[in-house]
Amino acid sequence: MPMRLNAHDAAFEAAFAKMLVSKREDSIDVNQTVAAILADVRARGDAAVLEYTERFDRIALNAESMAIGKDQLARAADGIDRETLDALVLAADRINAFHAKQVPDDLDYVDDSGVRLGYRWTPVHAAGLYVPGGTAAYPSSVLMNAIPAKVAGVGRLVMVVPTPDGVVNPLVLAAAHLAGVDEVYRIGGAQAIGALAYGTRSIAPVDKIVGPGNAFVAAAKKQVFGTVGIDMIAGPSEILVIADGDNDPDWIAADLLSQAEHDTAAQSILLTDDTAFADAVARAVEKRLETLPRADIARQSWCDFGVIITVDDLFAAGPIIDRIAAEHVELALADPDAMAGTFTNAGAIFMGRYTPEAIGDYVGGPNHVLPTARSARFSSGLGVLDFLKRSSIIACDAAGLNKIGPSAVRLAKAEGLDAHGLSVALRLNMPRT
Amino acid sequence: MPMRLNAHDAAFEAAFAKMLVSKREDSIDVNQTVAAILADVRARGDAAVLEYTERFDRIALNAESMAIGKDQLARAADGIDRETLDALVLAADRINAFHAKQVPDDLDYVDDSGVRLGYRWTPVHAAGLYVPGGTAAYPSSVLMNAIPAKVAGVGRLVMVVPTPDGVVNPLVLAAAHLAGVDEVYRIGGAQAIGALAYGTRSIAPVDKIVGPGNAFVAAAKKQVFGTVGIDMIAGPSEILVIADGDNDPDWIAADLLSQAEHDTAAQSILLTDDTAFADAVARAVEKRLETLPRADIARQSWCDFGVIITVDDLFAAGPIIDRIAAEHVELALADPDAMAGTFTNAGAIFMGRYTPEAIGDYVGGPNHVLPTARSARFSSGLGVLDFLKRSSIIACDAAGLNKIGPSAVRLAKAEGLDAHGLSVALRLNMPRT
Repeated sequence: MPMRLNAHDAAFEAAFAKMLVSKREDSIDVNQTVAAILADVRARGDAAVLEYTERFDRIALNAESMAIGKDQLARAADGIDRETLDALVLAADRINAFHAKQVPDDLDYVDDSGVRLGYRWTPVHAAGLYVPGGTAAYPSSVLMNAIPAKVAGVGRLVMVVPTPDGVVNPLVLAAAHLAGVDEVYRIGGAQAIGALAYGTRSIAPVDKIVGPGNAFVAAAKKQVFGTVGIDMIAGPSEILVIADGDNDPDWIAADLLSQAEHDTAAQSILLTDDTAFADAVARAVEKRLETLPRADIARQSWCDFGVIITVDDLFAAGPIIDRIAAEHVELALADPDAMAGTFTNAGAIFMGRYTPEAIGDYVGGPNHVLPTARSARFSSGLGVLDFLKRSSIIACDAAGLNKIGPSAVRLAKAEGLDAHGLSVALRLNMPRT
Repeated sequence: MPMRLNAHDAAFEAAFAKMLVSKREDSIDVNQTVAAILADVRARGDAAVLEYTERFDRIALNAESMAIGKDQLARAADGIDRETLDALVLAADRINAFHAKQVPDDLDYVDDSGVRLGYRWTPVHAAGLYVPGGTAAYPSSVLMNAIPAKVAGVGRLVMVVPTPDGVVNPLVLAAAHLAGVDEVYRIGGAQAIGALAYGTRSIAPVDKIVGPGNAFVAAAKKQVFGTVGIDMIAGPSEILVIADGDNDPDWIAADLLSQAEHDTAAQSILLTDDTAFADAVARAVEKRLETLPRADIARQSWCDFGVIITVDDLFAAGPIIDRIAAEHVELALADPDAMAGTFTNAGAIFMGRYTPEAIGDYVGGPNHVLPTARSARFSSGLGVLDFLKRSSIIACDAAGLNKIGPSAVRLAKAEGLDAHGLSVALRLNMPRT
């Protein structure tokens, strides 16, 4: 059974605070293994990558067969059924349209001291996209990771995806085709991250690596950070459904289960002001679990980490919502805008009774790569900005330098940095104060 | 003597590639020490923080004297000389004005399927700012780290600064006053990072920690990442000065030395198309080193890591500039805009002969916290965005869900996620396909 909390209870604060810091995943320490693989890939390049691929994925490749050509991607797209392909195309189009609106403007102006200031955004030259093999190989994730990079203008987008025992997921290749991925290699694990970060004879290095992966991939991404940029390290998924008593319990139950079925470590939380409704949802979850194909996973998640919180007034629950800082926040009530104004920490917000979170996973348009494990307090979902960097621009002429330079000389002196002051003072032809 | 490279030479590529990957700092492994301190602060709170402060900073404090009150900050500002205070105020005003232009717009629109989409930016609730004690205690860095947070709307900005042997830097306190810092604690090291991340009885936890620090601080920031957000881990400073032969060699020498005087691990690089000018700059550097107060540091940096690169055509050197991906790029030539169009990797760009990099350190307006160690390939300087997070918004009504929902159901089926499809299908009253 999920945990039941009532904000009324004297014991609420202690139980709620404990729930917030409880770990949902055992973290295996694979750092040493990963460090050894990365060092080996750095030293021996392709040979090391191919050896690890044979050992871990049980498939013998060479530098040539490691690559999956663009023609193969196109054929994969041709091979999937019409209805699924149409749905993928719709998703890609909508993701593309939404992310196009994220492209930031440059800034270039002259201020009232006559100094020209600004910044410009430029894309990273090359990005790598890690796609897991096996059951977690989601074509929707290929679209969500690849399309923002292409919208940003990344010149070279490289996808790696392991194909254990040679099994290739045609939907993943079709999604790569639709998203415009430039190169694909059938490698995975820490060895693939190493190849992307350091480069090999066959695979040129990239500047940034994104995409989810298992513990080895996550550890490898952390270890190569600095050599390349990385996106967030994804944790297990969460949903916070905020629902009044006027909802269909069965709809809300399905929403909670749509997180729970991802992973036994996923967390589904219901926040409601109606105890009878909470009971009805709990019953509806049990009922659905009887027939759900992934019931084993969903039941374990719901029993271990599911939470039902009852409050008197949903519109006064902002502080509770902010402390949960959930990846997904669903507002299943009559006035979702008013509710959304009561909190700020959320990866994505799903407004109203007709916006189940799954819409955001596939076809809404916004990204489904979102901050987990309470990191919505300080971070954002994946977007175009993750594939851009900003260079600031300062341009003084002699007159502008004359206006602001003396203050720089003064501060350099106060900080004891003489050459700093000198570089300005020489141009001002001023005495060094 | 600095390294001299000529892009003509057959040996150039090998020497240049080696220079790019050479480490300029020995990294001490302090991870275990730091982990122990963090665990202790997490477990024992104030008591642990105060004990470490007594041990490392040789100052006995209690929970009350650990805090520096707002009145003390104001008094510090009153106590510094008029000219320096005016310069700090000018810097603060200009940093504030530039960063105000970085505040991003929210997005809210209805697309042609009738689906409402958008995102909103909100500030992190609380941010911590680490300020080093001792020689690297720069009031300019307090302004550069604190002002973007306040512009972003961070409600609670907490500064920590160690005061070894009780020595307080009044300029740092004055800068905190000018920047509107809300709380200041005279603690440092890993123990201060732990206090900010986990909170103690006296210090409420924050959501994000920024600011430079030594190896212990950097390791602590990495270890608490996830519990809180962090900014980049700063490395030693770099400048790439791109200068034609029409410059005053003495000006360019001062620019190179303004980086070199920071740190023996700093790197100054001159890129020019004029060998005689390169020689003149090298001589001017030697001359200035005879009188520069921080000559010991600057000489070691210049001899160990300084580089002079000669090319035939500066405007064809874009690939070289992009590979260096310097923190600071100075364009001391007649047409800096044309030059700026030939590369994209740079933390900040200083345009023309009258914009020495030191202007950006103090009074330009843009941030001086910039990506080092080639990370300008994939990351940006500190700014307002670092203190905001973006929540995406999706709102379907029944008609909008009817348009895009069936594709979500299809993709959920393709990915084997039944509850995902169910959460949509129930609302569409559609059969589960």
